[in-house]
Amino acid sequence: MKMKSFRAGRYLMISARIHIRMLSCQSDSNLRIQNRIANSHSSTVVGGRMLGQYVTNGGDGPNSYAQNSSYQGGVLEVAKPIIEEEISKKLDVKHHSSTFRIADFGCSTGHNSFAAMKIITEAIKRKLETDGQTSHIPDFQVFFNDKVANDFNTLFSSLPSKRLYYASGVPGSFHGRLLPKASLHFAYSSYTLNWLSEVPKEVEDDTSPTWNRGKIHCFGARKEVLKAYSNQYVKDVEAFLESRAEELVAGGLMALIVPAVPAFWNPNTAFTSITEFDILGSCLMDLAEKGRFSKAKVDSFNLPLHYTVPQEFEAILERSHNYTLERMEIIDNPGKCTLPGPKDRASFVRAVFEQLLTNHFGSEIIDELFHQYAKKIAASPLFLDPENDKTIMIFVLLKRKPYDQK
Amino acid sequence: MKMKSFRAGRYLMISARIHIRMLSCQSDSNLRIQNRIANSHSSTVVGGRMLGQYVTNGGDGPNSYAQNSSYQGGVLEVAKPIIEEEISKKLDVKHHSSTFRIADFGCSTGHNSFAAMKIITEAIKRKLETDGQTSHIPDFQVFFNDKVANDFNTLFSSLPSKRLYYASGVPGSFHGRLLPKASLHFAYSSYTLNWLSEVPKEVEDDTSPTWNRGKIHCFGARKEVLKAYSNQYVKDVEAFLESRAEELVAGGLMALIVPAVPAFWNPNTAFTSITEFDILGSCLMDLAEKGRFSKAKVDSFNLPLHYTVPQEFEAILERSHNYTLERMEIIDNPGKCTLPGPKDRASFVRAVFEQLLTNHFGSEIIDELFHQYAKKIAASPLFLDPENDKTIMIFVLLKRKPYDQK
Repeated sequence: MKMKSFRAGRYLMISARIHIRMLSCQSDSNLRIQNRIANSHSSTVVGGRMLGQYVTNGGDGPNSYAQNSSYQGGVLEVAKPIIEEEISKKLDVKHHSSTFRIADFGCSTGHNSFAAMKIITEAIKRKLETDGQTSHIPDFQVFFNDKVANDFNTLFSSLPSKRLYYASGVPGSFHGRLLPKASLHFAYSSYTLNWLSEVPKEVEDDTSPTWNRGKIHCFGARKEVLKAYSNQYVKDVEAFLESRAEELVAGGLMALIVPAVPAFWNPNTAFTSITEFDILGSCLMDLAEKGRFSKAKVDSFNLPLHYTVPQEFEAILERSHNYTLERMEIIDNPGKCTLPGPKDRASFVRAVFEQLLTNHFGSEIIDELFHQYAKKIAASPLFLDPENDKTIMIFVLLKRKPYDQK
Repeated sequence: MKMKSFRAGRYLMISARIHIRMLSCQSDSNLRIQNRIANSHSSTVVGGRMLGQYVTNGGDGPNSYAQNSSYQGGVLEVAKPIIEEEISKKLDVKHHSSTFRIADFGCSTGHNSFAAMKIITEAIKRKLETDGQTSHIPDFQVFFNDKVANDFNTLFSSLPSKRLYYASGVPGSFHGRLLPKASLHFAYSSYTLNWLSEVPKEVEDDTSPTWNRGKIHCFGARKEVLKAYSNQYVKDVEAFLESRAEELVAGGLMALIVPAVPAFWNPNTAFTSITEFDILGSCLMDLAEKGRFSKAKVDSFNLPLHYTVPQEFEAILERSHNYTLERMEIIDNPGKCTLPGPKDRASFVRAVFEQLLTNHFGSEIIDELFHQYAKKIAASPLFLDPENDKTIMIFVLLKRKPYDQK
């Protein structure tokens, strides 16, 4: 397999040359369908904790993800022309069936997803028209996926009335199978692969050498902790790629926008999403100091998130066998300019983490926590200029290989 | 087209001979997809009232539909062997694709739907195995449909962990298109076609001769009111049949369980669902007498429900062109035996109507209303014996004709 296209982004460029080769990936197993579906859909309870059910804030209120996801959505401005160009060039419209199926994996309550599905369906329709298939425009069907605990009610009530597709919601973890074999023509996922299926178990075990004492994330922690997170990330992204490979038709495309951090950055002069986690962690420690809860409570709290670096993501793709890489580049996110003040930034972090925090610390600390958070942001001039946010996005376009070709 | 099968049910038999002929039905229009989808999915606001958004009680609490739908679910006990027999005899498994798609139209929060989908998927799997297709068992995909306002969050969190299918939710009114053209292999709908898309407008217009003063339903009302309801019912069922005809593949099956009342019954010695509406109406009038709200408020409240009679339903099928009728019979519902006491019956009616009543009268009257309702039921010995409930169910199995054959 050859890398067919690689362009330097118009934006922040981290790696001038990323050579990608696709290697092996586990083949489709012959597990009985009943077991396969049961496994991929069910949640696992470990140590009394329901794994994989943390989701962003539902509803449409002031603390909802719908009202506080401009940061995550901003990336679509940059990705739009790239997606349109790739669909125009790479989409195989010769062998489509009477239904063209698209899925967004990790759609939340739809605020950013609807914009992406509009771009994708309109681009596909234009491609079909350009290729003279006007009389055979298929019906589009979009599958909006997120975890079972996602607020699908808000998603469904927010669906745009004018749209090119029939809509459906698919509940379940995208680290497993969600759709029938070879039924999907276009897969999309934006700002979601940073979520792990679970916090690495050993990080929360106070008898383990990888116990993450005093911190809520792996960055800046001991190297054992970072390694545990990284291992989990690799396992999770591989499971995602393998599941989508089973769901995609041969020739089907997959566009991924993956939040990441540069391998080297100076936390004294620039911040990334990691900085947010550190501030959140320090606010939790402040509350522990004030006696709101014990420090051990903070020790046992860890974010199920990992921001990859391009080199790590490249290595994961290198081990996959089912796709050809059509495009890979680093893009910046103009969404960061949509959070001008400390309160906006606190609301954005709250919309993402409130449920996780409430599950662990109780809802009574949330207002105080984010009040403290906004104060810390306001106190640092570094955060007041969005240009200092050096979080990056990796854009990847993959094509499913023919099923008999590995 | 000939009626291929008609058996007298083992239960209450209303009509010894129902001759069904399928006649014309509007052909698939060439409307632009965008308009078609927008029209079929959007809700219509008439006179400030959101139409078609009334749903049963969500959640899983004591007043939820999930906890109070044993009546509606009871019918499945009787329908199960019929559905299994029909799938075994009539399902064409020669030309299925790699995915077998099933939809339940009007699934509510899934309590009864999951049981039906289990029966259907297991029967199809057995049929495929019997026909020697063991090596080509397709993936099953089930589409759970209900209105946009339905509690899909509860539906998704209640999905059985062991199931034979990939699950998805489809929001929208089943009186319009919901799925791509010719994409569905098996359609199912139980205890749903009694819901109208809207209350006939003229029934709520106090300047119209069909104004339904003093009552909340058409039965027992003036014949103009009954006619208006009947017209709406016919229009709605035709729209349902036409939409499903576009969604079903040629040869695809549709099983319908339609609540109905005998054309002739004596309200002094037997009751039906209609009786429930009368009692609910009289309780509302009692509250109006007590000054809780005006009598005009009751005059302007009408249930968007119609219970057909076999003759009416037969006439609708006679005008449809897209299906062959494979089976039609009248079945009784053992679910009625699951509501032994007045409070159970009040909870059952509350789970169905609470949202409608709250929208019109406000939530503060609900407890008092259903307390009154239970008292009225308790006061009448007629209701204490479920055998007096003469509500019937029409079971229909239809097969989609080839697309070029009308």
